[in-house]
Parts: sequence; C-alpha cells; structure tokens
Amino acid sequence: MCAAGAAVPQSGGEPLCVFGTGDLGRSLGQRLLQCGYSVVYGSRRPDSCGPIPLGALSHADAALSASLIFICVHRDHYGFLQNMAPHLEGKVLIDLSNNLKKGMFPDANAEYLQRLVPGAAVVKGLNTLSAWALQNGLLAGKQAFLCGDSAEAKQAVSQVCTRLGLSVLDKGSLSASRELEDFPLQLFPQWRLPLSIALGLTAFFYFHLLIRDVIYAYVENGKDISYRIMISLANKVFPIVSLVMLSLCYLPGVIAAFIQLYRGTKYRRFPDWLDRWMLCRKQIGLLALGFAFLHAIYTFIIPIRYAVRHKLISRMKNNKTTPFYFDNTEAWGTDSFYVLGILGFFLYVLLGLTSLPSVGATLSWREFNFIQSKLGHITLFICTAHGYIYGWNKFLKRSTYKWYTPPGYMLCLIVPSIVLVLKVILLLPCVDRTLTRIRQGWERAWVSKGFIYSLLDIVTNQQLT
Amino acid sequence: MCAAGAAVPQSGGEPLCVFGTGDLGRSLGQRLLQCGYSVVYGSRRPDSCGPIPLGALSHADAALSASLIFICVHRDHYGFLQNMAPHLEGKVLIDLSNNLKKGMFPDANAEYLQRLVPGAAVVKGLNTLSAWALQNGLLAGKQAFLCGDSAEAKQAVSQVCTRLGLSVLDKGSLSASRELEDFPLQLFPQWRLPLSIALGLTAFFYFHLLIRDVIYAYVENGKDISYRIMISLANKVFPIVSLVMLSLCYLPGVIAAFIQLYRGTKYRRFPDWLDRWMLCRKQIGLLALGFAFLHAIYTFIIPIRYAVRHKLISRMKNNKTTPFYFDNTEAWGTDSFYVLGILGFFLYVLLGLTSLPSVGATLSWREFNFIQSKLGHITLFICTAHGYIYGWNKFLKRSTYKWYTPPGYMLCLIVPSIVLVLKVILLLPCVDRTLTRIRQGWERAWVSKGFIYSLLDIVTNQQLT
Amino acid sequence: MCAAGAAVPQSGGEPLCVFGTGDLGRSLGQRLLQCGYSVVYGSRRPDSCGPIPLGALSHADAALSASLIFICVHRDHYGFLQNMAPHLEGKVLIDLSNNLKKGMFPDANAEYLQRLVPGAAVVKGLNTLSAWALQNGLLAGKQAFLCGDSAEAKQAVSQVCTRLGLSVLDKGSLSASRELEDFPLQLFPQWRLPLSIALGLTAFFYFHLLIRDVIYAYVENGKDISYRIMISLANKVFPIVSLVMLSLCYLPGVIAAFIQLYRGTKYRRFPDWLDRWMLCRKQIGLLALGFAFLHAIYTFIIPIRYAVRHKLISRMKNNKTTPFYFDNTEAWGTDSFYVLGILGFFLYVLLGLTSLPSVGATLSWREFNFIQSKLGHITLFICTAHGYIYGWNKFLKRSTYKWYTPPGYMLCLIVPSIVLVLKVILLLPCVDRTLTRIRQGWERAWVSKGFIYSLLDIVTNQQLT
Repeated sequence: MCAAGAAVPQSGGEPLCVFGTGDLGRSLGQRLLQCGYSVVYGSRRPDSCGPIPLGALSHADAALSASLIFICVHRDHYGFLQNMAPHLEGKVLIDLSNNLKKGMFPDANAEYLQRLVPGAAVVKGLNTLSAWALQNGLLAGKQAFLCGDSAEAKQAVSQVCTRLGLSVLDKGSLSASRELEDFPLQLFPQWRLPLSIALGLTAFFYFHLLIRDVIYAYVENGKDISYRIMISLANKVFPIVSLVMLSLCYLPGVIAAFIQLYRGTKYRRFPDWLDRWMLCRKQIGLLALGFAFLHAIYTFIIPIRYAVRHKLISRMKNNKTTPFYFDNTEAWGTDSFYVLGILGFFLYVLLGLTSLPSVGATLSWREFNFIQSKLGHITLFICTAHGYIYGWNKFLKRSTYKWYTPPGYMLCLIVPSIVLVLKVILLLPCVDRTLTRIRQGWERAWVSKGFIYSLLDIVTNQQLT
Repeated sequence: MCAAGAAVPQSGGEPLCVFGTGDLGRSLGQRLLQCGYSVVYGSRRPDSCGPIPLGALSHADAALSASLIFICVHRDHYGFLQNMAPHLEGKVLIDLSNNLKKGMFPDANAEYLQRLVPGAAVVKGLNTLSAWALQNGLLAGKQAFLCGDSAEAKQAVSQVCTRLGLSVLDKGSLSASRELEDFPLQLFPQWRLPLSIALGLTAFFYFHLLIRDVIYAYVENGKDISYRIMISLANKVFPIVSLVMLSLCYLPGVIAAFIQLYRGTKYRRFPDWLDRWMLCRKQIGLLALGFAFLHAIYTFIIPIRYAVRHKLISRMKNNKTTPFYFDNTEAWGTDSFYVLGILGFFLYVLLGLTSLPSVGATLSWREFNFIQSKLGHITLFICTAHGYIYGWNKFLKRSTYKWYTPPGYMLCLIVPSIVLVLKVILLLPCVDRTLTRIRQGWERAWVSKGFIYSLLDIVTNQQLT
Repeated sequence: MCAAGAAVPQSGGEPLCVFGTGDLGRSLGQRLLQCGYSVVYGSRRPDSCGPIPLGALSHADAALSASLIFICVHRDHYGFLQNMAPHLEGKVLIDLSNNLKKGMFPDANAEYLQRLVPGAAVVKGLNTLSAWALQNGLLAGKQAFLCGDSAEAKQAVSQVCTRLGLSVLDKGSLSASRELEDFPLQLFPQWRLPLSIALGLTAFFYFHLLIRDVIYAYVENGKDISYRIMISLANKVFPIVSLVMLSLCYLPGVIAAFIQLYRGTKYRRFPDWLDRWMLCRKQIGLLALGFAFLHAIYTFIIPIRYAVRHKLISRMKNNKTTPFYFDNTEAWGTDSFYVLGILGFFLYVLLGLTSLPSVGATLSWREFNFIQSKLGHITLFICTAHGYIYGWNKFLKRSTYKWYTPPGYMLCLIVPSIVLVLKVILLLPCVDRTLTRIRQGWERAWVSKGFIYSLLDIVTNQQLT
C-alpha cells in the first residue's frame, strides 16, 4: 500500500549486521537505520531479545547477508564466534567491546577475537561510543579511532563511521587495539594536568601561608590562631591560585605568538609541551573559575563568622575612648578593591558561561575569539589590579615580610604581570601587524634566523605599510 | 547545467506530501528535505502561502503523487479533507494536530479524521514535535509515539520517523490517539512527583519550625518573634529540604543495588514505584540544588538584616562589663561548619552543571557515572556532616527539645544517614564484587531464594576470588 | 571483500569538488561525506596537504569530474583560478571566502572571482560557517545566505545546503555578495540595541544619583561622600537598570497583544520597530540578569565594607545612652524586602538557565512558553514589589525629593508598573478569550476599524460563550 520508504535510499544496498541485542547493539542498530542503512540483528535468543524493529535472526542467519558485522557482545561470550567461524570467513568484524579495568585480560579483546576467527578481518573501533550517545544522536564531532590489519576492512568501517557523523582516526594495525580499549577507561584525561597544577599551587601556597600566618603568630607572639586554617587561610589561597591559573590559561597563547614572531611562519608545529598546554587551556580556565567561585563565597561568609564578629565587638570595647575618624582614603581604597573583585568575578562567570558547549555553539568564530581573548585578557587585567590594590600600601612595610618571606599576594602577581606585559607588547601596532600577516599565511623570507631578524622584520613591515 | 543534487539520493523515490504551509508544515517539509526525501506541499492558496522552496500545489494535485500525507492543519479546517476523500483513497494520512486544552472535542482529532476519510489509513503521531525543534534540528534522541489501525501504514511512517532521527514507539491502535494528543498538553510531567515531594517537605518543616520557634516563644516567653517567619525560618527549612531531597536522589540507587543483591540477577525488572523514582532522580537533585542555592543567598544576606544588626549592637550594650574571651573551640566549630557548607554547595553546583544537557554530552559514560555517583555521594556526605556539626553540641541539651519535639536539623539527618550507611555497606569489597558481577550479567544459580542466600553468595564469591 | 559502502547511496551521483585543503576545506569535505556525497579535493600540492581521506588531486583533475566546486581558498590566491578558467567553463563555483576587515578590497571576493572566471556561475555563500562548526556538526538550524546571478546554480547549491542541515535564504544577485561577506565580520549584532539601552540607562541613573547623593551632600551639607561612587551608587543603579530592562523585555509582548486585539487579526505584520524589539528580548533579559547578578554580589559584600563597619561602630558609640528598642515593623519590612529580592533573583536565574540553548531544547513549546511568559511576569511582579517595598515609607517624606527630583527607585518603577497593569488587563477572561481566538487564526469581520470595535468584540465574544 505505502511505499514511502522507497523515497529513501535504503534498498539496493547490502545490510549491516549487528551481533548482540543489548543496549549498545540496539542503539547502534537504530543509529545505522537513521543514517539510511538497513540492519539485521543476530542474537542468541532471536525470539526473546527485547524491543527491536523487524526482530532479530540467529547469529548464523544474520551473518549470511552482511559483510560487515558489529560485535556488540561481551568478551566473555566470544566463544560462539569461534564455533561459527566458517560463516564469518571473509567478513569484517568490528569489535566494540570494552573491559571494566585495565589489564583484565592478557591480550586485547580484538586480538583475541582475531585468533578465534582467523578467517575474518577484525577491526577494533567505535568502543568509545556509549549507548546513550548513540540514542541521543550525540555523535557529531566525536572521533572514532580505528585499528586493524586489513586496510580494506578499515576503509569500509571508516565509511560507515563517517556516515554516522564521526571523524575517523586510523591508529594502525590491530596491535594498537589494546590502546583503543584503554581509552574509555580514562577518567577526564584532559583534566589531569590542570588538576595537578591546581593542587600543586594550592598545597604550596597553603603551606607558605600556614608558616607566615599561623606558625609565625605562634612562635613570635605565642598566639594560637590555628582556627584561621579553615577559612582565613583558604580565602587567601583560593584567590591566589585562581589568579595564577587564569594567567597560566593565557600564557601559552602569548608564548605561541612570540614563537610565531620569532620563526616568522605559522606553518611549523609548536613544541610538544606548548601544544599540550594549549589543549588544556579551557580546563585551566574552568579550574580558575572554580577557585574564584570559592573565593567569592568565602568572602560573602566573612561577616557571619564568629571570629570576625568577636573582633568587631572587642575592637569597639577597647576603642571606647579613642576618637574614631572616618578615613576617606581607606573607604576609597577598600571599595575600589571590592569593585575590581566583583567586576573580575562577573567577567570570570561570563567567560565560564561562553565555554558551555551549547552557548559556544551559538557564537561565530569571531565572537568566540573576542570573548575568550579580549574579554579574557581584560578579566586577567582586572583581577591582577584587584591583587595589586590589596597590597598597595603594604609592600613597603617591613612587617609585611615576616621571616623575610614575601606574602602570597605578591608571589601570585608575578605570572599575571608577565602575561599582561607580554600581551601589551603583542598589541603594539607594529608587532600586531606582523603577527596578523604571519597568521594569514605570510612567511618571512629568512625564516627562523633569530630574534634580531624578527625585530628587523617588524621594523620593515612598519615602513612598508 | 549542474547536477550536484544527483549525488544525493532524492530522485527515484516517491515524494512525501505535506498539507498545510504554516510554521509546522514548512518546518517539517524542510526537515524531510534535509533527510533526503523529496517533498510536495498542498495548500489552500498555493500561490500565496509564504516562503516555500519550489512552491506549493493545490491539495488535490499534491496528494496525487504521494502515498504518505502529513496533515499539518488545525482540526477546525479538516472539512476540505472530507471533500477530497476520493483522492485520498488508500493513502496514509499522518495526523500531527494538537488541541489547546484537554477535552476540547468529544473525540480525538485523528479518529475524527479517520471518520471523514474512511478510505485512508490514518496514523496519529509526530504531534509532540514543535516547529521550533524541527527548524533547529533538535530531534535527535527524541521519541515519536505512533498509533494507527494499519500496521503497514505505521511501518511506513515509522521508517520516515527513524530517518528524521527519532526513536519510534508504537502505542497501538488509533484509539490511543486521544492519549497521544494529550501528551503535548502536559507541563513538566517528570517534575510533578519531585515538586510534590519538595512542597510537602517544605510545608511540613515550616509548620514544625513555626510551632517550635515562633509559637513556642510566644506561648512560653510571651515574645513576638513573628518577623522570623520571613528569613530565619526559611533559612532553616531550605537547607533541611535540600538535604532530604539530595538523599532521596541517591536512595533509590542504593535500594536498587540491594534488590539486585537479594535477587542475584539484574535481568528482573524493578518494582514500578522504584522505576518511577529512579526516572526522576535528576529532577529531585535539581530541586535540591535550588533549595541549596536559596539557602546560600539567605545566609549571605544575614549580616545586613535589621534584626541581626540590632542583636549585635544590643548584645554589646548589655555586655559592657563582662569580660569577653575568644573561644577557640567555638571558632573552629563554626568555621568547620561554614567550610563544609561551602564545599558542599560547590560540589552541588558542579553536579548541577554536569546535568546540563550540553555538558553531560561531552562526558564519557564513565565520567558521567563518576560525577553523578562518586561525587554525588561525597556531596551528600559533606552536606550531612554540615548538618551534624550544626547540632554537635546541642543534641544533649534539654532545651533543644522544646515541647518534647526534636528540632528540624535532627529530623533531616535521618534519611541522609541511612543512605550513607547503606552506601558504605555496598562499598565493602565483598559486597561490591558480587554486585559488579551481577551487573555484568552474571546470575546466581539459586535465584531469589532470600537474604541468607545472598549473604552466602557474598561469602562464596569472596572465597572464590 | 567488503561492500558495506554500497548500502549507502554515494555511488551513482557525481562527486562534489572542494578546492583548498586548509581547515575549512577539510571540514567542509568531511561534512559533505557525512551527508552522503562523494568528494574530491583539489590542492596546489596534492601530495603534501595534510590528512585527507582518499587524498587530493591537482586542481585541474579535481575540477574535471564535478560540476560544483567549493572554493575554500583565500582571495589572495585566486590567481590560479584565472589560469584554469577553461577547465571551469560551465561549472558552479561557490565562493566561501571572508576578509579580515570591512573594505579591505574595492570589490567583493565573489565578484572578483566572477571576473576572473567569466565562464563559470559564481555563487556566494556558506561563508558564515566556521571550520569548527562544520567539524562539530553544529549546522542544524543555522541559516545559509546565498547570492548569485544564475538561478540554476543557486538552486543546485541550495540543495546541497539543505542536505547539510542549513536553512537557505536567497539574497538575490551576485551584487549582494559584499553584504554576505560583511556578515561574519559583525560582532554580536543582536546585542547592539540591548547593550545601547543598558548603557544609556546606566549612564542616566548614575548621573541622576551622583547629583542627588554625592553632589547634594557636598553642596548642602559640605560632606565629602565621594567614596560612595564605587559601591553604594552602583548598587542603586544596577537594580534600577535591571528592573527597567526586565520590564522592557516583557513590554513588546504586551504591546503586540494590544495591536492584535485592536486589529482583530494575527495575519498582519507588526511595525518594524516592534519586530526588532521582539527579536532582541532574550538579549535584553540576559542583560537584566547580568545587572541583577551584580546587584546581588554588591549586596552580599555590603557588611565587609569599611564604610559600613565604621557606621555600625560609630552609631553605637554615639548611641550609648539612648535606649534601643527593637522595631517589629522595621524587622518585617526589611525582611520582606530581602525575601522578595532573593525570590526575584532566584526566578531570574531560573529564567536565565532555561534560555541556555541546550536546556531550552529539552522543553516542549508549552513548557518554554510557560517559563518565559508566566514565570517571567511573576519575576517582574516580584522584582517590582521589591522596589515598591524599598520606598513604601519614603515616598511621602519631603526629604526624599532632594532638589525637587524624584529618587531613582521611583523612576524605575514606572515602566514595570505599566507593563504589569497592561498584562493584568490582557489576563481578564473576556480579553484573554478574544486574544486566544485571534492567535488561533480567527479574524474579526470588521478588521481594524478601531478600538471601539475591539471592545464591542470583547463583549460579543463573552456573550457568545
């Protein structure tokens, strides 16, 4: 009666086969259907395998009609594949399996499968996809790693992956399958480095402040102010770490610009450490935002703390007689300090919001760049100014340098100041012009001869234009 | 001149027909085009029907060439379909119409349509899609409910739905169309239960605190502290409800684990109430976050309240003579209390952020699980500790139990404590190992014989491994 | 061996050609592959052009087999196209190029290209797509503007764009290409108007308050309270601007409803200014949220400010003797004020969250409407009440009207009050019924005769039902 399906090109082509009707198998099959393929399912129990459109066949029957077979079955159940090896002769088997832990088995699942069915071409891949992502169509822009010994087989699987909306990356022969099987077991791989930096900085500054504040007060004045560890110290460490992290987020971009200026070309790869650093800028920035958020809440909570109230009350008791003048400079100073902090935090949050995937997706490249670069550097500037104002009338007092150590808020201003100075140099019209030309693809004739040349170059560009 | 379109499989197949050139009709047609179908539009006024690629035909002409016709017209205008019934003989009509309210008409739109055109096969469905979702390609992962009396017709529509990226769910015969037409009229169906729980808890604790605080003070001491209703009471109720809701968010997972342990298999369905509960965990958690957010703001606002300032000032006036010592334990206690609250809130916000659809989509399943399970339980632990510290030196005082009732912060610790204790039991290596095996598909031989067996089982597993 | 690709309709059709193997060219090619097209790349250096599936050909060879050629090359390198003009005879060239600034070249890139290759049909378009969006599959719902002199060529490109998931908008002949090339150079075009309004309002109220607070105090009392500029003034201006912006966000909807009521039909377009206003409501609302957020932080920070602490302490010193009564009305008043502010802010944040693209996408149209309309007006009501309570006991005092000017919090209540009154009128059952009928497509017979008729109409509708 109705031939609507005919309008869509599913017919003609050979179906794809999916072994296994669990969550993953069903989701993969559905997704393949949505991409215009026809699909047959193979199941241990073809008659009782849950809600599948058009039903499932036995493994052997399903394998008959297809040359590509997706194995969505746990490694434990691979036994039946060995039994039906003759039916799988010349087929491409895509091993999607994962393990619960690293090193659960002596060999990779895909290599084990290849040993069981030597006549088939095993391709390892797609194991990074979850049933959930397949069901919800969240594949766009994701990468599919493939490996396998047959180039033809990989090519065929690669075509299917492309149609699923994935970007394919060939990782070589089947011996790489161990590596591929370890991918989904990683937890937040791109957060490792940023988290280590954040924890290292936190530990260092905590220790530094502990000595200068709590231990110093105990040793020199015999006062026990250990209760400060909980909030006062934390509220010094968090803004410090946040500011340093924020500057570490913008430092690699500045370094990269200087490297490009020095080399006179954009076509040479950056050193590996810089590449790695640049790839985790987003994570560094988000951690900085996290610390800034904690700093904000710690600050809001200050006036309800027992210690603060006590100080306020006892100061008044002791101050009963002395006259109490209003210091206009003090009012201006502290208020400016707070205003810079608030504005900095506001911009911080704005940066964080635009790094939400769905918000970022609505921005054009120019807009994204404007926010993450221009607004980011303004945020860094405001936050650094916030830090400078904090110490503006303290850095010349001897009492600031307890036990001859500089206070934390001075140490934390070093990196941001360097980043800002370097950025200002890059914004000088002559430097900016050269850099823009390099980034458009222009290459200096006497490439990578050194810094003098790049200076010469900047001067020349300026005179030419 | 150019045959680029030829590279894409639109030709050959029969076109799909869309009746109605309003927002919905146009968006549906465009989406069908994007999926590779060819489309003809039927319109009352083919010549003046807005911006449509390739224009529209009269209804009759459009119907000629297609066997599937999408009816994107209000029920009020179905009359013309009756007139052209001969042209619709043997066609599949997909009724996408919705009503403004439940029960506007005595029968479902689709059934009415079937009566008007008895020779066609009416399928109800796709009415949950909005023009906006169609235009913005937001269909992936959404469900399409279909119903109709002809299995063939449903199959044809189902194929189109699959190509649109939808997951199809067959709801049976056309008599189910009433139900389908009521779907889009529901407001936040999955928020109903969580909201009821939240409101119930809020009402109960508000009433409880009203009696213990305001009414008690009035009856026993004759003091009018009714002004506390606005902020002080709310700021006690909100954290209480938030903590209870958070624990209710993790309780079903724990119960499910114990059920699986008891049954020795994961292949039997959970009781209905547990299924429903588990499906609204996200909503429960988000409501808990909302209450925590309110609690945070209420807390920040404390020191600027008139009543608080007044108390601070009057305390000093009355305290003029008594010496005023700094209590280190008090400082540690309150600061720990605040720190736990801040950290708990921070993790809360983190959990909330990862439940944003676009953030969740960037996580692998393991990462999502790590955050929502591990981090979630840590958050629950910290927030519960926050509650315990609040009452640590009060629970033994008689004055705490006004009118022999326990205070709210004690009541609210019951459920979280139970969840945490149960979770700790599940984390014991022997229990955890058994549970992991069950979740990998292993089934205990003497299934569902009772608790003793599952204990035996735990012991056995431990000895085997 | 494997013919899986055969299941997908790539064969048969002619390939599409992409000139240029940079980021954009590679991403476009991949995306075309994912949509089922076959693709050939043309490159200056076919052997060394980075990771391309199936490799690249020379420009001439690549052009041979295709009739559509996507030019993903900088305008600077267009020279080679002139040289190979004979090979491009009769082909469609799609110019995707962009410039760095407006007016870099005397003519549009596409017109320049057409002059270089007069025998080809140049179509300008797709230049708003970024490589990043192409790679991550973020095209759904985006618009593709096309222009060109050949209708046939545009039609062919338009088909490809549709398959890529884009909505095509024809902008006319090739002379429009300048306009299209300027599109991607715009920064946040839809934020322009809202930002101007916000800045204008901020400047006006800042100036107004500066005169009334700081200058008045200096002139009349000789007191220097200039330090208030930083925080106190800002914390008055921000909530004022936020409230006005929020009401400006809901005013156009109310005006539109009255226009529809007056005209008696929904089928006539609104005046241009109203259309533009309605299109930037989201941005106005988000700016209002930004100001509310700043207001909240400024408020939280109040008690730790030097000036506030000083005032608190000095008030006590001077107050030593006077008795200090607790004012219950004052406590109720200020607490209600804070509660309304907190609830308003909470709803504000909720509105902001649902305007995140990925959150909005999970809502049905009814739910989105409920939140943005119902919840939005409730938020406006609560925030307006917050403003009214602030001035409830001040508006009758003469001291409020310094220099005969009304204070800012009075001025800012005007627009919100008007919006709320108009909204209440619209919610009257008789008006609401007529409006609902109009929005369902019903048209009044004596269309647009004036207000008396629409009143008549409202009365008639009421009697009929």
